[in-house]
Amino acid sequence: MTPDQDDLHLIETCIESEQIWRGRLLDVRRDRVRLPDGSEGVREFVTHPGAVVMIPVLDDGRLIFERQYRYPVGRVMIELPAGKIDVNEDTLETAKRELREETGYEAAQWRHLGTIHPTIGYADERIEIYLAQQLSALGTNELDEGEFLEVMTLTLDEALEEVRAGRLTDGKTLSALLWAEKILTGAWS
Amino acid sequence: MTPDQDDLHLIETCIESEQIWRGRLLDVRRDRVRLPDGSEGVREFVTHPGAVVMIPVLDDGRLIFERQYRYPVGRVMIELPAGKIDVNEDTLETAKRELREETGYEAAQWRHLGTIHPTIGYADERIEIYLAQQLSALGTNELDEGEFLEVMTLTLDEALEEVRAGRLTDGKTLSALLWAEKILTGAWS
Repeated sequence: MTPDQDDLHLIETCIESEQIWRGRLLDVRRDRVRLPDGSEGVREFVTHPGAVVMIPVLDDGRLIFERQYRYPVGRVMIELPAGKIDVNEDTLETAKRELREETGYEAAQWRHLGTIHPTIGYADERIEIYLAQQLSALGTNELDEGEFLEVMTLTLDEALEEVRAGRLTDGKTLSALLWAEKILTGAWS
Repeated sequence: MTPDQDDLHLIETCIESEQIWRGRLLDVRRDRVRLPDGSEGVREFVTHPGAVVMIPVLDDGRLIFERQYRYPVGRVMIELPAGKIDVNEDTLETAKRELREETGYEAAQWRHLGTIHPTIGYADERIEIYLAQQLSALGTNELDEGEFLEVMTLTLDEALEEVRAGRLTDGKTLSALLWAEKILTGAWS
């Protein structure tokens, strides 16, 4: 991004970038940066290929969710379907692929709604939000190796009740539900 | 958490945990895990002390936000005030401290609303959401060294318009705005 001249009192610039570690998933970097006051700072962060999250709406209005154990938080989470962008993959193609692989559904109607930056303090990840409608079941899903999840459905109201009750806490899903409610109720056309 | 017996087909258990790197901010781990089908997998993730995000509501209904450059995403972001939990710090104390330090306000009325897990794929971070009301200005903020930000206000409707227009994409803020709208409109008492 070209920095806005009005924001020069906020902007940090890279002096030197160092790769600390590259794993199968995570790429950890430590950059020396020039702070707005001219002093130096250090920024540690993870680079990530980006991801998509889908809001799949069945013809009766129910939304498709997943239950999946998430090792870093040590619990089974209720989530909207999501997945990482493959190298050079168009994000809409990622959304179609991941919806098919994880839930066994395909959608005839797709709409990009917006973007989430889930972890701006220490990751460059972005998540593109897609609304998927006119769904049809393919009969089976095709999970990646080492991937275990259950597909479930909730109405929008039921999903919001899971939030209110403290049982739905996944950030990308909370963010996407803000969009889902606005779009599905017609508040945002 | 004690695993639910009904979820044994989803749950992964630790075989061996390895610290890959410990920086000033990030603690990177790689664990060998037992997958639900008995096979082995690897989980790479970041451990994080946890954080709080505040929804500070002025008496006229406007909310306090910040504009801050976020190096990993390379842009100035509109965010609700937030901050990391210090060692052994009660999260309400974190919220009071960070609101004072970042915005120069204190609140006479605090309410815990819910929890966000922002990055369940590769971090254990949780963010506790607090509503802060009956605010009073202390006259000045006290930013940490290397911290540069601007304080601003938006009505709830203006904040939602920033979301709709694609100018507000920070995940913790989107998640907290889902809660803010439900609580401030009285939909959730």
